[in-house]
This record gives sequence, C-alpha cells and structure tokens, in this order.
Amino acid sequence: MFSKILIANRGEIAVRIIRACREMGIATVAVYSEADKDALHVSLADESICIGKAAASESYLNMTAILSAATMTGASAIHPGYGLLSENAKFAELCAQCGITFIGPSYEVIGKMGDKEKARQTMQAAGVPVIPGSDAFTDRKKAAKRAVEIGFPLMIKARSGGGGKGIRLVREEKDFNSAFDVAAREAEAAFGDGALYLEKYVNPAAHIEMQILADKSGNVICMGERQCSIQLNNQKLLEESPAPTMSAEKRKEMMEASVKAAKACGYENAGTIEYLVDKEGNFYFMEMNTRLQVEHTVTEMITGKDLVKWQIRIAAGVDMDFTQDDIRLDGCAIECRINTRSAGRIKTLHIPGGPNVRFDTALYQDYTVPPYYDSMVGKLIVKAGTREEAIRKMNAALCELIVEGLSVNIEQQLDILTDERFIEGAYDTGFMEKYQK
Amino acid sequence: MFSKILIANRGEIAVRIIRACREMGIATVAVYSEADKDALHVSLADESICIGKAAASESYLNMTAILSAATMTGASAIHPGYGLLSENAKFAELCAQCGITFIGPSYEVIGKMGDKEKARQTMQAAGVPVIPGSDAFTDRKKAAKRAVEIGFPLMIKARSGGGGKGIRLVREEKDFNSAFDVAAREAEAAFGDGALYLEKYVNPAAHIEMQILADKSGNVICMGERQCSIQLNNQKLLEESPAPTMSAEKRKEMMEASVKAAKACGYENAGTIEYLVDKEGNFYFMEMNTRLQVEHTVTEMITGKDLVKWQIRIAAGVDMDFTQDDIRLDGCAIECRINTRSAGRIKTLHIPGGPNVRFDTALYQDYTVPPYYDSMVGKLIVKAGTREEAIRKMNAALCELIVEGLSVNIEQQLDILTDERFIEGAYDTGFMEKYQK
Repeated sequence: MFSKILIANRGEIAVRIIRACREMGIATVAVYSEADKDALHVSLADESICIGKAAASESYLNMTAILSAATMTGASAIHPGYGLLSENAKFAELCAQCGITFIGPSYEVIGKMGDKEKARQTMQAAGVPVIPGSDAFTDRKKAAKRAVEIGFPLMIKARSGGGGKGIRLVREEKDFNSAFDVAAREAEAAFGDGALYLEKYVNPAAHIEMQILADKSGNVICMGERQCSIQLNNQKLLEESPAPTMSAEKRKEMMEASVKAAKACGYENAGTIEYLVDKEGNFYFMEMNTRLQVEHTVTEMITGKDLVKWQIRIAAGVDMDFTQDDIRLDGCAIECRINTRSAGRIKTLHIPGGPNVRFDTALYQDYTVPPYYDSMVGKLIVKAGTREEAIRKMNAALCELIVEGLSVNIEQQLDILTDERFIEGAYDTGFMEKYQK
Repeated sequence: MFSKILIANRGEIAVRIIRACREMGIATVAVYSEADKDALHVSLADESICIGKAAASESYLNMTAILSAATMTGASAIHPGYGLLSENAKFAELCAQCGITFIGPSYEVIGKMGDKEKARQTMQAAGVPVIPGSDAFTDRKKAAKRAVEIGFPLMIKARSGGGGKGIRLVREEKDFNSAFDVAAREAEAAFGDGALYLEKYVNPAAHIEMQILADKSGNVICMGERQCSIQLNNQKLLEESPAPTMSAEKRKEMMEASVKAAKACGYENAGTIEYLVDKEGNFYFMEMNTRLQVEHTVTEMITGKDLVKWQIRIAAGVDMDFTQDDIRLDGCAIECRINTRSAGRIKTLHIPGGPNVRFDTALYQDYTVPPYYDSMVGKLIVKAGTREEAIRKMNAALCELIVEGLSVNIEQQLDILTDERFIEGAYDTGFMEKYQK
C-alpha cells in the first residue's frame, strides 16, 4: 500500500479523498493555489504545498508544479479527484514517467476514451450500442453534408469534450453552420481541439450511467446505475440510484454491456459509462468518464462500498475482495448538489445529521469561498429503504441545511423534489426545461 | 400508521426521532421547558408546546402536562426517547388510559423489568444466567447477613435503579453498612424506592449488551451486541459493535439467550439486555432496558436497520419484514459520546462528514446550552469495513470535530482510541480506572 498520497484537487473531493486516506493509514499531501490557503483540504492534509496562483491554469492544472510537489514530499501516488487533471492522459503519462502511481486507469485508456470518436469505435467493436452518428470533422462543409444524412434534430459534440462544453443541439438544417462554428471555437478554447462529431438527437431520453470498478487482475464489477437526467446547462443537479423506473432485466442487460465495454478497453480502476436511454428502453453509449464521478456517493450509499478506498487499493495492486454477485443495491439514495452563484463568507453553516444522511463539503463557518472555482460547494446525500422515504428524507435534510452568507440552490432542489414528474420517477433530460423559462 | 407523534424528550434524541418521523411522513409535536425555547428539537418539529419550567421535574417529567399536550394537538402516539419517562411504567399506563400509544413495551413489562428483583427472577425462570445474588432488602441487618453468605467483594444495587444511581461496590465486610445506607438514600431520592439487592461482584468483566426488536406478532429478533465497557462513574463513554473479542459461537449463544429472555417476558418493541461477561466468556444477566439506548446508533450502522423507525412501525402494529437470518453484522461501528462539563454558547460548530460518519446532536452555532440537563451534547458514530479502519476513521473524525464555546471531551476520547488496551480489544469495565486517578 502507498504510504503517502498527493491529492491533485481542491474542495469537497479533496476532503473526501483525504478522509479515505486517513482511514487507510495513508499520509496525505494537499496542493493549493494562493487563493486556497485557508481551504479545508489544506488544514486536513498532513502536509500541504502551494503550487501557484488562483487561476486553475496556474495551479491545479500546472502538471510540473504538482509533480514537483509529489517528488519533494515523497508521495508515491497521486489521486486526481474529478475535473481538473483527472482525465488528462498526458498528466497520467507524466506521472508514470516520474515513477508516481496515477490513481486511475492507464494513460492509454484515458487517451482512448477521451477521444470521443475512438471511444465510439471501441464501444461499437465491443458490441455496445452507440448513438447513430459520424466520425469527427474539422471541415464544416463535410460535416454539413453528413448532417443531412443523419437527419435533424442532431447534436454537435467536441471530440475531446466533457463537462458540457463544445456541445450544441441543432434542430433544423438552417442553424447547422453557425452552431458548428460556435461549438468548434468553444471546443478549441476548452480542450485545444476543435474537431466535432455529429450524433442523432435521442430525445426524450434519460441520462443513465453505470459505475464500473476494475482491478489489475482483470476483475470487472458493475455497481449498478445512477439516474442523472436532472441537468441544467448540461450540468447534473440531482442524481439517484437505483433509477426509479428501470426494470431488473434492463439493469442486468446494461450492467453486462458495461462490464463488456470496460473489458474491451482494458479498463482499470473506477470508471463510469454514460448512456442515453430512450422511452422504449433502448440504450446508447454516450461516453466513458475515466475517473471518479461527483455522484459516486449514491452508489456508495446503496452498495456499502467505499469507491475512493477501492480506487486507492486497486491502484496499489489490491484485488477486489467481492464479486458481482455480492453487489446488492440496498434501498434508494439521492444526491442533491448544493451550488452557489456567489463568492463570499460563510456566516452560518448548519449541517443535517442522523442515520444515512451525508454532507460532503469543504465549507466551514467563517470560510470565504473564493470566486475562481467550481460553483458546487456541497453534496447532500441521503439513503432510505424506499424511494418515497428517501425523497421525504432529502426534503427534511434540505430544510435543515443552512448555508448563510452564500446564495445556494436549496429552493431549487426542493422544487425538484416536490415536482410530480420527479416523484413519479419516469423523468428525462428535458426535466429542467420548465424551470429555465 | 400514526399521523402525528409527540416526542416526550429533548436534545439529540428528540431530533433523532423527529427526523425519523419526517422520513415516514408523520407529523411531530415537540414539548419543551422554558429553558429550551431555542432548542433544535423545537424548531424542527411541526408543532411545539411549552410544558413547564427548566427543571425536568417540572416539565419533561410532568406526565399530566405531556399527556395534555398530546391530547390538545391530536397526537396519537408518544415516543419517550431514553431517560426521562422512557422507563416509567406509570406514564406508559397513563398513555394507555388516555388512548395514546406509548412507543415501547407494555407498562406491565416496563414495570416487571424496572423492578430489578422481578427481572432477575424472570430471567432465572427463562434459563438465562444471572449473577449470584439476593432478593431486595430494605433492612440493612438482614442484607448484611446475606452479604456475608455471598462473599466480598459485592455490589449493592437499587431495585428500581438505572443510569448508575444507587449502586455501590463493597470490597470488604467492614464497609458494608455505610455503603448500604448511602445507596439506600440515593435510590430513595432518585427512584422513590430505597430497596436494594446484592450481587456477587463479577470482575474483571465486560459490559456487553444485546439489542432486541420484537413485534406484536411475537417475532423477536436480536440485532447483535454492543461492547459498552468503557464507562466513567457508571456512564458509558464509548460503545462499539461488534464486540471485538467475541467469538461467533459466543455471539450465537448470547443472541439466543436474549431472544429467549425477551420472549419470556412477553417483550414488544426495542429493548436491550445488559450482561456482564467474565474472562472465561461466562455471561450473566444484569438488567433489561425497556427503551431505546443512547448507543442504538452503532447497531444501526452495522445492521442497516433504522431502530427508531422500527420502534414506530412496531408500535403501530406493523410486523418486521426481515428475519433473524437477514441480520448481518457488516463491518465495525464505534460511537463516541461527546460530553460537556459546562453550559454556554456554541461559538463554532464544525461537524465531520463523508461516508459512514454520523453526528447526532441538537447543537447549532450560537445555541446556548442550558445548564439543567444531560452532559451529553452529541454522539459521533463511524463505521468501516474493519475495526482497525473504524478506529482510524474515528480518530480522524474526532480531530475534525470542533465545538467552540463548550468544554468537551474530545481529548478524552482520543486518549481512549489510542490506548493499547482499546486497540487490542479485550478490555473490561476497569478500562477507565487509570484515567480517574
């Protein structure tokens, strides 16, 4: 096992990883930007190193600074969390070159799955259904021709995309050219790669994802699904597991497809396969996220497995001590993301408690949230025996939660929880449209 | 199911019960003393009623005021929590007379088990081992004669006792008379019954208790044990489940004895049977607590069952939907009681989070803890796959916990967790002696 791990992240996920390390008896190194010197992850870690200025590009995305910090402190592994460098194949490769274990899959797999075109091809070859679509284009004219063949409405997506950037829905042919140009510029700016591919617009559809855990001995286990259709601007707001309307047969089918997909690409460590599921239950591969997801928590609640600890163990060469048959989805778990539109000082923080209530955050009383980073400042997760109870429990927990000093979206989450379509359970990615007007 | 429940308690357990009710869609009524108008349980309940002055005897122990509050608000059931009226047979009987469901066993059973002498006899008749000892005495001379027969050292205990009151250890014959007198006065003052019985002093011994759940159809299930030997002045400080050195065979034997004991007294609802276990693994019935225990949380963590919700369901006539074979003790859970020696205003409250960390409290920032009640202000509970991990997790969680403005025992708990005897696991009720010097 590693004796010391550097956490190349900030916020709640850095805190989450530090806690897992403490439980495993592993020393931790935090890295932080100049804006984060008072951050919770810095005070919780055994050691901490400032790696640059407030802008993430000058600190949390500075590979050299992070690798130097690891070398300097003698950390033998790096956990990248989510976002930032977590799906950066080059960073994973640099880690390998420095003799530091990157806690995640190999850089080859990250690269292959990060290229949405290659990922599609890999999945198709493995027999996993993909959305009818095209290879990647940089030439708008060629793309437009292919678009007509696929038919409208369709999606334009960045080959190197993720996190909702470089994505456009085109409803009619006349809008194609301008949408292509905007998406290309956005993709170029966000990922340094302006190439775009086209996809049939599957709608209405649910965004369902499957959690995978794979060890170095080739054992691949699927930990069930998460229903993640409640999104605003392609950002998830609320996730739950199991998906309320999924049949046991469909779950089995999708879990088997996901295990097959992970094996096909030689996957290792924790990963997530995202699917679109249409009204008839047909599912289509969207993308694979080669890292921990924000919403891994709901899977932890219903499987009882600590995914971060398993990420670390697997990276250290420990095989899973359970099998697919040991995975039971027990009860219902819901996560509400707590987002803020403002930076500012936390005057009061009151956190709900009790059995099966979890609040993952890096907030604390008198902490000043810096304006430079993620808008998500906490994740409230509950579990109960039935979905009805879980919804009531989340309602009660949201009402107990107080974050004074920031403008947070507790009301928005309560609106979702009391929305008839949510309660009924058969919702799709169009759920938030009515709130956007 | 009940539509409205009155919670005849305060502090963290009132909050705990209100949360369970919310999850079940049951309305709640809080009662509070004049000193508790700003208490968390008051603001969390749907309705609240002031029932008297600060002194518990004039509010939380005022049966008439509580029953009036229930009648006035239309509450059809009362949850008594622990302490206060929870083991008061007369109160349970009054509830029945008022047509209000007392969430707990029948008043007859409370009465029988509250009389330590009758409880002993019931257990002996059921074939459960009891500590060699005597019937109850009010006459000191007769007691002294019986004491010599039993032999020294021995324990003097109040017939109507509980919570560590009216208990004396007598090491030598010469100390018997004065100890008897003091215990009698204490018992008279605390329970209105000065009768005392004698017990052989089983020492060294571990304090191990078994959690029972019994429904109205006669199903009795044992949810495993808790090791509760870490006590100061007969007050538990830290509890864990499972007991670290208990063998599977011994567990089975004690669980079976406990189910037999519960059946023998016609038990219903949640209850706990306390045993002393000597070095050879012989176990002796000490007493039965006919209510929820403070430390029910560790059992919840490793069984995944919500004991408060089951208390409510059983009282409403719902049978358990699981069997003894469904009870798995999964992982290791530890609870640390957070106590204070002072009253005062909470300046900062920082609560640890993450998976399998639970903090049950009624504290909040800027709350002023009144001086009238329990010294316990919170319970920190963790669970992990192994005991080693659970200990590390508790260590980390205690280090994260900040309660500024009160003097709390975080250091004391850290001392216990790092004590070699605790880590080794084979500790007994003498554990805290070295810290008392």
